[in-house]
Formats: sequence, C-alpha cells, structure tokens
Amino acid sequence: MDFSFSSDQEQFRKAVADFAAGRLAPGAGVRAKSDVFPWDLVREMATLGLLCVMTPEEFGGQAISEHVVLGIVVEELAKADFNLASIPIVTNLVSNLIDAFASDRVKAELLPKVAAGDMLVALGLTEPETGSDAAALKARATRTSNGYVLRGEKTSITALPSASAVVVFASTDPAARAKGVSAFVVPLDLPGISVQRFDDTGYRCIGRGALTLDDVEIPHDALLGQEGQAFTNIMNGFDYTRPLLALTAIASARVALQETAEYAGVRTSFGRPLANYQGVAFKLAEHWTELELARLLCYRTLWLRDQNSPHTVEAAMCKWFAPERAFRAVHDCLLVHGHVGYSTESPFEQRLRDVLAMEIADGTAQIQKLVIARGVFGREFGTLSSSEPTC
Amino acid sequence: MDFSFSSDQEQFRKAVADFAAGRLAPGAGVRAKSDVFPWDLVREMATLGLLCVMTPEEFGGQAISEHVVLGIVVEELAKADFNLASIPIVTNLVSNLIDAFASDRVKAELLPKVAAGDMLVALGLTEPETGSDAAALKARATRTSNGYVLRGEKTSITALPSASAVVVFASTDPAARAKGVSAFVVPLDLPGISVQRFDDTGYRCIGRGALTLDDVEIPHDALLGQEGQAFTNIMNGFDYTRPLLALTAIASARVALQETAEYAGVRTSFGRPLANYQGVAFKLAEHWTELELARLLCYRTLWLRDQNSPHTVEAAMCKWFAPERAFRAVHDCLLVHGHVGYSTESPFEQRLRDVLAMEIADGTAQIQKLVIARGVFGREFGTLSSSEPTC
Amino acid sequence: MDFSFSSDQEQFRKAVADFAAGRLAPGAGVRAKSDVFPWDLVREMATLGLLCVMTPEEFGGQAISEHVVLGIVVEELAKADFNLASIPIVTNLVSNLIDAFASDRVKAELLPKVAAGDMLVALGLTEPETGSDAAALKARATRTSNGYVLRGEKTSITALPSASAVVVFASTDPAARAKGVSAFVVPLDLPGISVQRFDDTGYRCIGRGALTLDDVEIPHDALLGQEGQAFTNIMNGFDYTRPLLALTAIASARVALQETAEYAGVRTSFGRPLANYQGVAFKLAEHWTELELARLLCYRTLWLRDQNSPHTVEAAMCKWFAPERAFRAVHDCLLVHGHVGYSTESPFEQRLRDVLAMEIADGTAQIQKLVIARGVFGREFGTLSSSEPTC
Amino acid sequence: MDFSFSSDQEQFRKAVADFAAGRLAPGAGVRAKSDVFPWDLVREMATLGLLCVMTPEEFGGQAISEHVVLGIVVEELAKADFNLASIPIVTNLVSNLIDAFASDRVKAELLPKVAAGDMLVALGLTEPETGSDAAALKARATRTSNGYVLRGEKTSITALPSASAVVVFASTDPAARAKGVSAFVVPLDLPGISVQRFDDTGYRCIGRGALTLDDVEIPHDALLGQEGQAFTNIMNGFDYTRPLLALTAIASARVALQETAEYAGVRTSFGRPLANYQGVAFKLAEHWTELELARLLCYRTLWLRDQNSPHTVEAAMCKWFAPERAFRAVHDCLLVHGHVGYSTESPFEQRLRDVLAMEIADGTAQIQKLVIARGVFGREFGTLSSSEPTC
Repeated sequence: MDFSFSSDQEQFRKAVADFAAGRLAPGAGVRAKSDVFPWDLVREMATLGLLCVMTPEEFGGQAISEHVVLGIVVEELAKADFNLASIPIVTNLVSNLIDAFASDRVKAELLPKVAAGDMLVALGLTEPETGSDAAALKARATRTSNGYVLRGEKTSITALPSASAVVVFASTDPAARAKGVSAFVVPLDLPGISVQRFDDTGYRCIGRGALTLDDVEIPHDALLGQEGQAFTNIMNGFDYTRPLLALTAIASARVALQETAEYAGVRTSFGRPLANYQGVAFKLAEHWTELELARLLCYRTLWLRDQNSPHTVEAAMCKWFAPERAFRAVHDCLLVHGHVGYSTESPFEQRLRDVLAMEIADGTAQIQKLVIARGVFGREFGTLSSSEPTC
Repeated sequence: MDFSFSSDQEQFRKAVADFAAGRLAPGAGVRAKSDVFPWDLVREMATLGLLCVMTPEEFGGQAISEHVVLGIVVEELAKADFNLASIPIVTNLVSNLIDAFASDRVKAELLPKVAAGDMLVALGLTEPETGSDAAALKARATRTSNGYVLRGEKTSITALPSASAVVVFASTDPAARAKGVSAFVVPLDLPGISVQRFDDTGYRCIGRGALTLDDVEIPHDALLGQEGQAFTNIMNGFDYTRPLLALTAIASARVALQETAEYAGVRTSFGRPLANYQGVAFKLAEHWTELELARLLCYRTLWLRDQNSPHTVEAAMCKWFAPERAFRAVHDCLLVHGHVGYSTESPFEQRLRDVLAMEIADGTAQIQKLVIARGVFGREFGTLSSSEPTC
Repeated sequence: MDFSFSSDQEQFRKAVADFAAGRLAPGAGVRAKSDVFPWDLVREMATLGLLCVMTPEEFGGQAISEHVVLGIVVEELAKADFNLASIPIVTNLVSNLIDAFASDRVKAELLPKVAAGDMLVALGLTEPETGSDAAALKARATRTSNGYVLRGEKTSITALPSASAVVVFASTDPAARAKGVSAFVVPLDLPGISVQRFDDTGYRCIGRGALTLDDVEIPHDALLGQEGQAFTNIMNGFDYTRPLLALTAIASARVALQETAEYAGVRTSFGRPLANYQGVAFKLAEHWTELELARLLCYRTLWLRDQNSPHTVEAAMCKWFAPERAFRAVHDCLLVHGHVGYSTESPFEQRLRDVLAMEIADGTAQIQKLVIARGVFGREFGTLSSSEPTC
Repeated sequence: MDFSFSSDQEQFRKAVADFAAGRLAPGAGVRAKSDVFPWDLVREMATLGLLCVMTPEEFGGQAISEHVVLGIVVEELAKADFNLASIPIVTNLVSNLIDAFASDRVKAELLPKVAAGDMLVALGLTEPETGSDAAALKARATRTSNGYVLRGEKTSITALPSASAVVVFASTDPAARAKGVSAFVVPLDLPGISVQRFDDTGYRCIGRGALTLDDVEIPHDALLGQEGQAFTNIMNGFDYTRPLLALTAIASARVALQETAEYAGVRTSFGRPLANYQGVAFKLAEHWTELELARLLCYRTLWLRDQNSPHTVEAAMCKWFAPERAFRAVHDCLLVHGHVGYSTESPFEQRLRDVLAMEIADGTAQIQKLVIARGVFGREFGTLSSSEPTC
C-alpha cells in the first residue's frame, strides 16, 4: 500500500497549488458572481498543461495517462477557485473522448485549441425530459448522404455559454435504446443551432445552458467512434468525472472549514473564542473527518481506473457522499459566522450555492445509490420495473 | 386538550390565507429578489389588522391578546410569501414593546403609524462584536440634562433599510452588565445617525442593515420602561418571536414539499413518475413529519405564553429544530428537481437562501441548545466559565 | 387551543404516576430480564382501572371514552417500567375490539377477566411470510356446520406466553384478499393449538411468541363482527396503538435522559463535570427536543381520534419518528456513561434493547413512511406495483 | 499511490480468511453468548502467527513490522467472529509494549507464551473515576528497596478474566501528572490482587473486568521502560489500536449488510422482494458507502504509522466514525429483518451489542473529536480549562 503521491505527482501538485494560490485565489469571489468566462486564466492553465493532461503531445496534451493526476489538478485548483476547477474536468473529459473516438480531422482541428485554452467543447447529454435515463434520449441523428441531420434538445450543459462546439448524444437507432445512442462533435456556429444561457444560483462563471438542434447538418466524420456505442463510452467517462466533481466539492469545503476555524479562533462569544466551545469545535471535527474520508475514496477511485480495475460503484459512492457532506460542511461554516455569513460579501453563501451544483451534476444521490445497491448487492436492488436503469 | 383553533381563530386564519393567496403569492418570487420594500402590500396587511394584533384599539391595533393568533398570521402569510411574513413579526414585537414600555408621547406618535402600515420601527440589539451575548453590549447611553446621548454600533437589524425608527439597546450602567441595559426609541432622521444596508443572500425585500450612533441626542421620554430593564424585556420577547420565525420557515418548507410532490407526480425517470420511487417518496414523508412536529410545538409555545406559563425552553426548541429541518426539506426539494432546481427561475434556490435566514435570526442553534440544556437539566450544562450566558 | 390535560385527566395522571413510581419502578430492572409475567402487578393495574379504560362498566371497564387517557396511562407507566406499560396497550386494544365486535357470550366471558387482570387476550395478525402485508394472510378459517375450522401460523404475538386466548386473523375468503379477512377469539386450550415462546433480546417479561393452529374448531360466535371486515377493524386499531407504543418509547427515553443528566452532573472528566461539556450537553438538548416534539404529536393523534377526525397519517408519523429517536437517545445516554453503560447492571443497555422493540412492533419505519407519503401526497407515492399496499 | 495489498499481504490475508471462515465462523454465535474463553482457537491463531505479528522471532513472533498486516488480521477474523478478532489486538499491543520496553527477564518469560496462545496479558489503564483522562490516574507505585508496591484500582480491562498478567499504569510521581505515569507488568497470582469479572451486554467471550491492587509487591524489572514515560508509550499505542478496533466494527457490519442483502433478496413484502424497495436498498447502499470509506481510512492510518508519519488525528477519525456508522448499519440490518431480527436467535441483536463495545473502547466519540479538533485546528479547540486534555 502507498497512500502518498509519487514525487512527480507531488511536484506537479505543488506547481498547480502555487498557480492556484497566486493566480486564482485573488479574484475567485468576484468571478463567482460574474458571468464572464475568464479566458485569460484558462490560457494560463493551458500553459501549465492542466487542460488536456492525458492527450498525446502531438495534439498539445501532456500525455500523462494517470487519472490520479486529474484529481490532483482539480483538487488544488478548487482550493482557490471552486468554479474554475471544473474547467479541466470539462476539457479533459471531452479531449479524452475526442482523442479516443474522433476522426483524425476532428482531433487535429479541436484538440490543440482545447489544450491551448483557446476553445471549449462542451458535453450535451441531458435532455429536458430524461434526467439520468440516458437510454431514453429523444434527440435523433438521421443519416444522410452527406453525414447526419441532428434534431432535438439538450439541457443543463456545463460551460455551454463559452463553448464553440458540443459533443451531442443522439439516437441513431431509437429501437435499440441505450445501444442505439451515438455521439457527434457539433460546432455551435452551424445553421439550426440555438443556445440559451441559464441564470443559475451558483457555478456562474462557467455557466450552464440549453441547446436546440433544429435539423443541423454535420459531416460523417463528426461521429465519435461507431454508431450505437456512445452510451457505453460516456457512462464510462462518468466513472472518473464523478470523483473529480466530488474532489472540487471536498476541496472547497475543506478551505471553508479552515477559514471558519480561523474565525472561531478570534471571534468571541460570552467572553471566549468560539473555538473553545465544543458545540463549534466538534462540528468542525466531524466535517473534517467526513471530507478526509471522501477525499481518500476519490483518489482510490481514480487509482482503480488507472489500474483498469472496476470502479463504477466507487465512483457513485464519491458522487453522493462527497457533495452531500461538503454542502453540510459549508452550511455549518456559514452558520458559525452567524449574521456575518448571511451577507453576499461572505464567501460562505457563495460556496454554499456553488457546492450545491455538485449534488446535481452527473446524477443525483438517488441515482448513485441505485448504482451502488445494484453493483454491490445485485441487479434487483432498488429496481422498480422491467425497464431497468442502465447507468 | 384541544389541538384546534377556535372558530374565531379559524375564521381569521381563513381571511389571512385568502389575502395571502390572492395578494402575496403572485409576486412573491419577484419581490424575493428585489430590494424594494412593498409598502402597498404592507398597508393591505394593516387593513386586515395583521401588524399590531395585540395593540389597544385606541392606537390602531386589534386588541387580540393571543400570541397564537400571531402564529396564525405568520404561518398563513409565509405559505404565500416567506419574506413578507416576517413583517408582522417585526411590527407586532416592536409595537408590543412600545405599548408596554413607551411614554405616552411615543405611543401616540408611533403606534398608529405602525398599525397603519405607514411606518416601520426596527429593533437594534446585536452589535458587531457581541453576537448573542446581550450582556456584553458596548453601545452606551449617557444621561444628560435634556435626555440621553447614544453612542455605538448596531448590526444585523431586520427591516432597517425601510424603518423610520429603531428601538436601540444601550447600556446606561456598564458595570451592571445585563442589568444595566436600557432601550430607547430612536428616530432615524436625527443627527449623528448613519445607516448601512446589507447585501444579503436572501430575505432581501425586508432587508437588514447596520446602524451607527455617533452622539445621538434623544429626549428623556425616548426611554422604554425603566433604566436597566431592557434586557429582561427583550429576552422575554424572543420567547415568542422564536416560534414565529420558526413558523415562517415551516410554512415555506411545507409549500416546497407540496410543490415538489406535484412535480414528482408528473416528472418521470426511467419510465415512471418520481413519486413511485421510495428514494423520493420517503424523503418527502420524513420532512413532512418533522415539519408537522415542529409546527405543533410552535403553537404549543405560543399557547403557553398566552397562559403565562414558562416557555423559554420550548421557544428555543422551536428555534433550532424548525429552521434546521425546514432548510433540509427545501434543500431536498431542490435536489428532487435536479438541474431544474438549480436555476434562479426555480423557487427552491430562493427558498433555500430565504429559510437560511431563520437559522441565524434570534440566535444560532448553539445558543438555543444552551438555553434548553440549562433550562431542562440545570445551569451547569454546556457552561464554560463563570461569566455565564444569561440568555 | 388547549395543550393541557383536563383536571380529571390530570388527577388520573397523578394517580397512575404515583402507582408507577411506588409499585413499578422498584423491580423494573429485574423484571426486564425475567420471563415471569408479573400477574400481581397487572392485577394492581386492574384495580386502578388501567386495563380496560374504555370498556363499559358492566364488563368491569372504566367507560372513559378518551384515547388521550390511554396515552396518559401508557406514558406514566413507561416512565417507571417500559415493559409493563405495554400491557394496557394489549388489554385496551383487545377489549375495545371485543367490546365492539364480539358476541355477547364472548364479551361476558372475557371482558371482566381482562379488566380484572386475571386474563390476557393477545392479538394474532402477523404471519411468518407476510410482515405488514395483512392482505396476504395465509391463515384460513373454513366455515363448518358448528362454526369454523382454523388453520395457519401466527407469529410475533405480543404477550402470547401469558395469554389465555388470541384474536386470530384468518381469511374466510382468500380471493377477496384484504376484504376476506375475518377475526376470531380463540382460546389457547383448544385441541390443535401449539404455542412457542420467543427468546427475545428485550421486552421479555411480556414476551412474544408464535401460534400454530392445526384444524382448530371454534364456534360461530367466536367471530368478531362480520366476515371479511376484520382487516378494516384492526387497521383502525393500529391508528391508536401506534401513538401508544410511541409514547412508551418516548417516556423511557426521557427518563434515560434525566438519569444521564444527573450522572453528567457528578461524573467528572478532565477535572470538570461532564455536564459542562457542550459535546454532552447539546446531545441531551437535541434528544430532549425531539422527544418533546414526538410526545406532542402522540397526544394530538389520540385527540384527533377522540374527535373522530382522520389520524392515520399522524399515527404513522408517531410510529416511525418516536421509536427511532428514542432509540438514538437511549444509545447516546448509554455512551455518555462510557464503559459503565456497557454492563448489564446499567439500565441503559436494557432500555436500548427494550426500546428497539418499538421500532418493529406495528410496522417498520418503511411502512409508516409509505402510509404518510400516500396519505399526504397521493396514492402513487412510494408504490411499486399494482398490488398496492392497503395499510 | 497504491491502494492494494502487496502479494505477501494478500497471501497472508487469504490464509487468515480461510482460517476465519473454516474455524471461527461456525461457532461464533454460540461463543458470543458464552463466557468461556476459547483457548483452543486462540492457540490455532498462534499457529498462524496472528498473536505477535511484529514480535521478534526469538520470542515466537513473526517479525513482520507492518501495522497494515495487523489490520488485515483483525479485519479478516472479524468477518467471521467479531469477538475473537479483538484477541490479536490485545496480544499484539501488549507484546509490542513488552518487546519495546520490558526487561529481558520479562520478555523471555512472557512473549513466547503470548505468541503461543498460552497466556494473555491484559492492559490496565482506565480507573473508576478517570475515564479518558490518563493524566489523572490515582493508582500509585511506590519504590521500595526490592522494587515497587502498587496500590489502586483499574477497571474496564479487556480480556482480564482470562489474563495471567496485566500491564498496570500507575503514578510514580503524582506531581508530574501525565509525565509521572509508569507501567509495570504485574502477574495476577500475586498477593494483594483481586479480579472482578463484568457481566456485559456483549463482547462476552473476551470479557472485561476490574482489578484491585492492594499493596502488591513487584520487582524492579517489572517496570516497562523508564519511570514517567508510560503515558507517552501507551497513548502512542492507541494510535494503532483505534484503527484496529474500528476495523473489527467495520468488518462485522459489512457482513451484516451482506447477510441482510441476501435476506432482502428472498423475503417478500407486498408481493415483491424487499430488495426491490429503495427504502431498503438505499439504506444498504448508504451504509456500505460509509463502511467502505471508514475501512480505507483505517488502512491509511496503519500505513502512516508504518511510514513513521503522524497519524493521531487519523486514528481518532477512525475511532469515532467507524464504530458509530457500523452500529447504525447493524441496527438497520436488524430492522430490515423486522420481528425476526429481534430474537436472540438472530445474529443481528448480538452484533448490535458487540459492535457497541467499539463505540466505548479506547475513548468515546467526544474524546476523538477533541483530538481531531485540537490536532487539525489548534490546541484551543474544544478546550474548556487550563487543565488541558493531553490525549
């Protein structure tokens, strides 16, 4: 057993931490309330090689094939800026998909730009009616002589407002359900596309939006991989974005606990620092414990992936436990600050709204518990009907 | 035993409910995000007699000496508009204090205006450094030949941005600590006063602010009651504002549960309405139970007050339990809505931020648990030092 | 509203409390570990009129038609002896059923003996395979020229080891499912009956057992009410035994908290009484709050029944919330006693095992939450299939 | 990073698992209710080298200096027999202390017997009045010309009823408080010693007891290490027994969850297996997650110790989180079994009482949270007075 980072990983971690502390921490609070996408900082991340960690060097990536390193990137960034920490999740997930499944043309066109921080490609999976039931997608891709025509709606797409293209999941064979879903790289400047930005309670500077595809024509080589295999590929991707999202929540909540401990050391109540009171101190200790536990599982999950070992159950555990407990931790941190914490000038009400996003992204706690119960105890667990969830 | 409202109370409840549904519900979402104080609606509340329920008729009140009725007012309003439901808490608390302790001049000047919804008088107790330790107030009132000179800072004053006067708590005898605290009615247009509005995460249309008193001169008859007795009076008032605040949180969360149940009835996941899933249904049932329990205790507390029976412990129970569980309920309601709930167009993220205010107002959960432990088990419980909390 | 007992109720409460403190408290700990049924004490309860409170005087009852009074009886007894407090639940439930539905012969034969504490009649509903699904009962009652022949197994019957008769639920019309269930008063000395005593972790002096009916012949007038209506009748009875069972758990846990607070006042740790530590004091305050809330709802539920108002949802709320929180409270009380609490000489490990019984009796928490979700939000909530639960 | 066991460790794990499944599982239920110490099985453990894993080979040990291996031993044994899994905790802790600090005579006399499973040496630290405050010990060791005279009382000593000697902690310099505590190896057949066996709710076959030392004379070389250093040594030992105790609770609870899942797969309710119901399935998934998290932290803590890295905070985290959540898991497992689970023939009520012991041993949750708060956030956290806890 070895619970420590390798020296290479540790060195990388320090570099990311320095960047995060020096460049991201300063304006994080302002950016969190802004809708402006911070391209400059993203390009700085690119310079450090954070956007396409696993992508081959020929496409501008770092060719480091360790998901654990993605965890390091995301955790360190989130300590300084919860919101920007999600950008490498988007860029790495999408560039890995493109690298693995896209045509040479698409790779050569997109990957270098994504790696350089000049372009975002978002991921369009969720639809208005379907929630986590990816097998019930209504978006359709119809093959034509020139390629495909896409029709449908996608919603809750992270980073859409600043993206130039979207990986769209659509059915090429509705009868096959999950096994008929295909993925396509769709530039957002094509005719028939309209984009709507959401006005969200948090997670604003990355933003979220909806996409309408009204008979959008794309060439054949926009297809990622083979027809009908997108579902397996993306679900597979969730298995590492789940611990990554979890790590952003954990990192943010740990910083919140540290700041709250500092405050508790100086703020007095009835003539003593709040720190003296077990009513405060024990809550901090409980939250710290749960976040420490959650963090460990996230890295174990990423490590399992790096070993090509099964980790779907572990990913689901990360995803429900970490954001739920991180939210609770931030909530208690806010409350320790009392009426001061309620102001929008306090970072805690912002963190509360930001971390909340992680409870929703990549599937609710219910979905994760279903995945766990089925994975650990058997496929009949938590199942209601013959149309079984396949996530 | 009789757990029902009297027929008079029930009739009154219906009138308030009708008003709330017809007049408050429509714009509640918009007002919640606005900083404009809705004077028109407040005057409509006045017409219904909601602002000074217990005040003598000669001053424009309803002369209904039942705190249970205050509960009814607040609960029914909060079902439609969580924020506006707090206005009668402010007006009734302050008008009761004024009615009981103010000089005839002050009564005649202020009460009719407050009862008519033409004027707000806020309550200035909390100071930047003291939190819930009212005995450690730093604001000073120095007696002069003409009256008093006030000096100090007050913060986290509910409704301050729209108030014309504030009941300020200041020490006339610092050595006597809690027993040296006096209260004064201070108009906000006097020289030496400055007001700062807070930019809060919720509870916005009522607003909150800070007050600086820089040698503000007030006449003798601005004193409420006798010198040194303010602390007892206001702490006594907390014993009914705590269940009232709790009721607003409960009412808001119950509506959230009902709306979520409706959504769960129509929104499908994996081919079935969410309602079918025990993962959703049981959470709703658990929250409903806890809110039902909390509601009952609030009315019991108000009823105990109406019987002149001790109810400090009960008030503290209401105050920690109800907002905590209401917040959890709203949080889960938001999550059941998934990514839809995260938008600012969803009422749930707004409710989450609003209800959060109730976890802070009138003392944190820690203070309430201290009150309970000391009241039920003995004064040595949870006590850290010889400078004992006196709340 | 009136949250207090009437003066008659209060007088009765004091009488029960005196009896409980004087006669039950002394040997409660010893009895809890014994399998001997305390007939003497039960006869003393009879003398006080606790066993058949609502039964007409001609049959030896008190003719007090208030379920709230049953709550008083049960709560006061449980403060002194958790186990014996369940005896009036059994006797009152069964005598109410017999009074309402039995033939004159059965009434005259059984009620005076039950009221006098000379005889127990138990209730046999649960079967080995069916749990809470009363509609799926396998026991059969076949009509003959002389009456009925019963065949089947009943299990988890409270007080069976000391009972002389059992109200057995069996189907007279299997095709009608819930609407084919009938109830019969079956003396236990009939041929074809065998009784098995359980060796339970707690709740021992009342005991629990299983009953096998191997072609047991009973006369026509052993039928309670009409054929096919037993299910409705007994389910209706659950609506008041649920709050009564809840009250025994609450009362036991409240005494545990009080005893623990006393211990915390004298036991020192690091030079201070445990009471000083918020880590201890706040836990006690939290449990006290939840038990206070639960107690209130129990009486409200009983009161609703006395008003002939719907109270099924409230009864289910009592049943899941109160025992769960009482168990947690007793658990924490034990832990505050540290290694001392782990000994069988400590009352806390006994209470923990006793109170646990209340989480199971009359349906698990899951069943209660189903009842609540369906009752409050709609029949589709938490439902899995077309064979809908009817409890 | 490497979250897997080495191949040596994995091979060892399998050997222990085979032994546990083959030799311990069969009679575990019977032994759990018995007060007979299973010397035969302990000698079998000895044959496998489980009792003195780290002890030098010359004294019969395995000379494997990896605390992670202790974790493996304890976890695998506890899957089959929770109670016997604690024996290697006692033997390894004590033999490590003796090996590190005892005189050559004592080492040669005791270690081979302990390693062979022929003798138990218990650890006597806790006193009736002091709880976790080791610095306030009242037992005294007075130096004489021949050695020391011991006087005092020790309580809550695990395995005492079957032990032949006890490592007794007593003060050689009361004024120095924690720094005046020394440890002595005391055979239990000396004059002046009396032993009392406890009658505990669980954890019976190992047993627990109290020791009275009434002027017991021991030779000089019974001293472990130097005078005044015992406290540091034993507190240091807690840092690995805490994760070991935690692992026994986790292992037992995981088996409980697996057995419950099997039951849920076959037991039907309302026509469906319990497994189908999310009300059951999600609870199992939640518990499984928390136990998985806790297990990971236990191994990390043991690994940190193997690296000579600080791990006191981690050990405290293991100790409060794991037993608390294991107890909850077993509790819910029992409840899923409904009335069947309440019988003493069900393994769940036994596990509940057994696992409860782990919430108490080596310090309550409060102590652990104090250690965490002070270790992570600063020494002023949760501290009440100048006589600071030093654990």
